Amino acid sequence: MKQKALPWGPPALPRMWRTLTCTLTAGGSAASSRLSMEGPASPAPAPGALPYYVAFSQLLGLTVVAMTGAWLGMYRGGIAWESALQFNVHPLCMVIGLVFLQGDALLVYRVFRNEAKRTTKVLHGLLHVFAFVIALVGLVAVFEHHRKKGYADLYSLHSWCGILVFALFFAQWLVGFSFFLFPGASFSLRSRYRPQHVFFGAAIFLLSVATALLGLKEALLFELGTKYSTFEPEGVLANVLGLLLAAFATVVLYILTRADWKRPLQAEEQALSMDFKTLTEGDSPSSQ
Amino acid sequence: MKQKALPWGPPALPRMWRTLTCTLTAGGSAASSRLSMEGPASPAPAPGALPYYVAFSQLLGLTVVAMTGAWLGMYRGGIAWESALQFNVHPLCMVIGLVFLQGDALLVYRVFRNEAKRTTKVLHGLLHVFAFVIALVGLVAVFEHHRKKGYADLYSLHSWCGILVFALFFAQWLVGFSFFLFPGASFSLRSRYRPQHVFFGAAIFLLSVATALLGLKEALLFELGTKYSTFEPEGVLANVLGLLLAAFATVVLYILTRADWKRPLQAEEQALSMDFKTLTEGDSPSSQ
Repeated sequence: MKQKALPWGPPALPRMWRTLTCTLTAGGSAASSRLSMEGPASPAPAPGALPYYVAFSQLLGLTVVAMTGAWLGMYRGGIAWESALQFNVHPLCMVIGLVFLQGDALLVYRVFRNEAKRTTKVLHGLLHVFAFVIALVGLVAVFEHHRKKGYADLYSLHSWCGILVFALFFAQWLVGFSFFLFPGASFSLRSRYRPQHVFFGAAIFLLSVATALLGLKEALLFELGTKYSTFEPEGVLANVLGLLLAAFATVVLYILTRADWKRPLQAEEQALSMDFKTLTEGDSPSSQ
Repeated sequence: MKQKALPWGPPALPRMWRTLTCTLTAGGSAASSRLSMEGPASPAPAPGALPYYVAFSQLLGLTVVAMTGAWLGMYRGGIAWESALQFNVHPLCMVIGLVFLQGDALLVYRVFRNEAKRTTKVLHGLLHVFAFVIALVGLVAVFEHHRKKGYADLYSLHSWCGILVFALFFAQWLVGFSFFLFPGASFSLRSRYRPQHVFFGAAIFLLSVATALLGLKEALLFELGTKYSTFEPEGVLANVLGLLLAAFATVVLYILTRADWKRPLQAEEQALSMDFKTLTEGDSPSSQ
């Protein structure tokens, strides 16, 4: 596409924010043409349907967060730290941190397709930090609630999966940081680790969603008991929430795995990749 | 690798069975060299670590089936159709059909890398038929059990997810059959549908495993109640079973998604693909 300087361009806005609003608000071809007119280089056009799928994922993710809040507000008395309501901090924080934010952290390489790789990496890492901190608050909430009530810890499948998710999430972040953000790892080492990082990132996200479903089920059976089988409004609402959690995970996974939606190599990465290919005579490392 | 006629070759064994035993019992390089010596054409060598991962997935899958049987036998009185034990048919059939067999059906394109595409497709479709029939027995068992006991149907998140899995599984099989096995669909149509079929196949498998985890949790909370929190042996066994179910899903997904383990195009497919590429001037359709 041809480059053109536009008098109405918003030069003061950060480029990343413009990309986000472009991707989320405009249709495919409009978004890609606007993107290509703004940058100094000639970025690849965004795939046609990607913005709609990203918008749909955000709609699902926000609905899941809102519905978790509505469930806790309408049927569980709301949220407070210093009371018996402290437990309710747990599901809300986990859904915001380990479902919504973690899912969005995986999508940044699809949304910010034409930004510098480093900027996108930093955003990816930061979103994971936010997710982790929020999830940590949720974890403290449930342990404090158990302590105050004298309940046993870590006996259920939900709690075992949850602790596993936490440990894997933390390990993945540390290894990812030391390979991709900390300077030192060679280009060849990064290329070999990248597919593993991508696979385990998606797997940890999916295990997080499965753990949320187990927790939701546990909360329903503990509280509703046999009333669950009489189609109480709380049960129906929570079932719909469960299906929406699964739908969010499916849409995020679809966006991540579609081959033609992968982030294109930028000019400088392309050059590096070609050098590497010449050196090793193997496959060129695929973009994230 | 050079072709060589071997006097000790087992020519009477069906080729597919030999491939399976090769993939499962031998190490990477040994397996690939034996494979390449047997066929009339020159098949691509199997990737080094693939046989070990396939063997590990089978070990996990069989352990999951055995442990489900052990759980039902040791703590739930075993299995029988004409008694109160009819319910126990449900978890066993679902784990065999919708977890183990469905997972293995997804792996056939990785295990039988050098067979004719059609043979592999038929096996893939047949394994799904077996999975469906076994799961159907499991479904009838739980509905009959509910009817005899006067329990309500389809109120829980587990049951909603289960019915969704069944509907999606059936729809995916029908669409897959009419596109890939029923003659008529054009090469271009198949190429465009293939990535969708692969994605939804994996998604339905993952939703099946998540549904199994929800069912396991439900069975534990209904039966154990507050005893679950005292680390009863049944609870610990079922938690371990849950983790192994998640591990089986992870290993299957890892084998499926590793780019360098994808099934290579066979000679005749390669020719077709090149023709198609010339015709459309687009990307060549990727192999399953």
